[in-house]
Amino acid sequence: MGTLAEEIFSYKLGRPVHAGETVVVDVDHVMSHDTTTPLAIKAFAKLTGQKTGKVFDSKRSHIVFDHIIPAATIAAATLHREVRNFAKEQDISILQEGICHQVMPEKGFVVPGSVIVGADSHSCTYGAFGAFGTGMGSTDIGVAYATGRSWFRVPETINVNITGTLPAGVYAKDVSLEIVRHLGVDGANYRAIEYTGEVIENFSMSERMTFSNMAIEMGGKAGLIAADETTRAWLQGRTDQEYPLLRAVNPHYERVIEIDVTNLKPLVACPPDVNIVHPAEEVTNVKIDEVFLGTCTNGRLDDLEIAAGILAGRTISPDIRMVVIPASREIYLEAMRLGYLEIFSRAGASVGTPGCGPCIGRHFGVLAPGERAMTTMNRNFTGRMGDPTAEIYLGSPATVAATALTGYITDPRAILLEESRA
Amino acid sequence: MGTLAEEIFSYKLGRPVHAGETVVVDVDHVMSHDTTTPLAIKAFAKLTGQKTGKVFDSKRSHIVFDHIIPAATIAAATLHREVRNFAKEQDISILQEGICHQVMPEKGFVVPGSVIVGADSHSCTYGAFGAFGTGMGSTDIGVAYATGRSWFRVPETINVNITGTLPAGVYAKDVSLEIVRHLGVDGANYRAIEYTGEVIENFSMSERMTFSNMAIEMGGKAGLIAADETTRAWLQGRTDQEYPLLRAVNPHYERVIEIDVTNLKPLVACPPDVNIVHPAEEVTNVKIDEVFLGTCTNGRLDDLEIAAGILAGRTISPDIRMVVIPASREIYLEAMRLGYLEIFSRAGASVGTPGCGPCIGRHFGVLAPGERAMTTMNRNFTGRMGDPTAEIYLGSPATVAATALTGYITDPRAILLEESRA
Repeated sequence: MGTLAEEIFSYKLGRPVHAGETVVVDVDHVMSHDTTTPLAIKAFAKLTGQKTGKVFDSKRSHIVFDHIIPAATIAAATLHREVRNFAKEQDISILQEGICHQVMPEKGFVVPGSVIVGADSHSCTYGAFGAFGTGMGSTDIGVAYATGRSWFRVPETINVNITGTLPAGVYAKDVSLEIVRHLGVDGANYRAIEYTGEVIENFSMSERMTFSNMAIEMGGKAGLIAADETTRAWLQGRTDQEYPLLRAVNPHYERVIEIDVTNLKPLVACPPDVNIVHPAEEVTNVKIDEVFLGTCTNGRLDDLEIAAGILAGRTISPDIRMVVIPASREIYLEAMRLGYLEIFSRAGASVGTPGCGPCIGRHFGVLAPGERAMTTMNRNFTGRMGDPTAEIYLGSPATVAATALTGYITDPRAILLEESRA
Repeated sequence: MGTLAEEIFSYKLGRPVHAGETVVVDVDHVMSHDTTTPLAIKAFAKLTGQKTGKVFDSKRSHIVFDHIIPAATIAAATLHREVRNFAKEQDISILQEGICHQVMPEKGFVVPGSVIVGADSHSCTYGAFGAFGTGMGSTDIGVAYATGRSWFRVPETINVNITGTLPAGVYAKDVSLEIVRHLGVDGANYRAIEYTGEVIENFSMSERMTFSNMAIEMGGKAGLIAADETTRAWLQGRTDQEYPLLRAVNPHYERVIEIDVTNLKPLVACPPDVNIVHPAEEVTNVKIDEVFLGTCTNGRLDDLEIAAGILAGRTISPDIRMVVIPASREIYLEAMRLGYLEIFSRAGASVGTPGCGPCIGRHFGVLAPGERAMTTMNRNFTGRMGDPTAEIYLGSPATVAATALTGYITDPRAILLEESRA
């Protein structure tokens, strides 16, 4: 009896738990990546003694190389080596085939009803599978590696119920930005967000992941979606593990937000905060220097398909540069097979190896002072992609692709309309 | 009457010229790339006046973005922007679809009998087309942009005549390393190298480019190969320009080196100089951290085909990382179509966007202190790929692919032999 968050913790602990309780849970999986693992190792070593300590379970401890891969600097290469040595000592296989939040589900590590902690703020992405995924600091993750346990204050829940029919040219990312506009960048602090409603139910796992991924942009501890047959179908062949299809039962939500998407327009989050959201059609005078299609928010096959549909047979503006990075090797190979990568390359894009790409401003598309990027990322904070005077705009893969064609922020419906007339 | 170098300069000037003469020539094309253009712009501006100066011919002036693309740092992004602004002012189209020395021929800018100067030492690559291509400092290139002319001391020529039959597992790169072993890293200082013989005549344009590319590793001003029907076939559809098939006529060579490849083995150049060459089978105890397949030396379709043949259906050693970067978009798309990129990705490699990749140690595979790389590059100088204590070994695409499988320098014949037994 309770919210999905309460149901998951009750299931894990075998007793009813309620929002506000502090609980200690055996976590199902612990994850860190190339830039957070070095600090996690330090915490782990302090706790266990550097020479003798072993992780709680090497098969449930995961290190993903995704942030600065391949190494862009001597410093990054040196940290990578340190982490590789740790992984070898601990018998952990380093995963280097895409962004942690995409690769973890693909490998079958994320199942409904599980609790997963990651040394990355977007670990809330796992909520799309009805798993309580949350980001923690590297020190907490070091402790989780050592003990296999974490403590949680079971969060209150904000329910975001999404109804209506999505108009042409409007996508999961636009709806996610509309939610951030409603809730603000701290509107879900310490809370779980539980996404419900017909729109969510009809969405693919990829689209659901976009929502869960963005929960932290409102301060959410988790962004939960009840698992269903869509979830089960996606997990088929990826895991043999049994799992429950938990859902909220007579939940008490702290707050309910109703969003009808029927009249929604393509949206753009303007710098420097994710909740500064405007219709794309109202910011079309913004000249853009770089577009970036990818990330744990929108680097999946359907995202690439949307953009490829707009870019097929076209070339990007000579005044813009475009970076495309599939979120995982699985997606990369499938996008290659389906001809999307060829479309991007012929259009003039730089297609990168699976990983985070320029999302953290450390390589493969860093911005110069005063430059502007239009991206499918989840964050537009000052300085995130390079120089602090550079600006980051966020939108859907369609808006990013349309912008690539014109060099200015472009409502993708303008391109789609042009196509339907042709 | 003379060496190929003398024939080219005689053709250009319309009068017989001889080695030792200082001549001023109208150059056919001038090239610089993202890391050398900023200095060339400075020289250009001094000469012409920043506001009013125009390049001699915007259609024969070429700026290629290949070295740190997409930008890996704010500094690189800032320089890129400066160069983009210059190119726009000058009506120069920036080429961003691969390594300058690959893209220039692909675009039809390199034809037999032409003289091309580039702000990159490996501009000698154009010699494979019977063009006098040579690298110059950014200041000289700035002057060439302004005037369309450069001065040359017509060089003496060392003839390298290559005969015999190439054994299985031995490739153009191995022969190139054998030549460096003979001549040393300064054996061709200020000279042109003219490659002749049945082996060169039977080689493809791609293989010939490997030889011409490596000329500067012996100090050569140019690495010339007489154009023939192979050259003509390659240029078909790339240029409408008329050109002569010049060749040496009663040449006086300063020195002739005869190399019979019949008993040649796969070779490896060991750090820190290109002429420290050993048979691969004698250095198999060297543990490797990273392999890199690509560059203007060996990033072409046949190079990728050789490596894909070895890696198909296999995965690289878990203790190694592999970077693959096709030399141009044309090669990238063709390698995608032929399934090579899929083979590399499935094997565990990071496939990058066309460009120079980690060859200059500025991104996409930088080495940590003490690490070792086995690469298809042309240079293994101290510090080139990252930390100065890192080591770089050079070999053929086959040796690089075989090394990727084992994690140690590996003679590719060991893998090929294993295959023929299976």
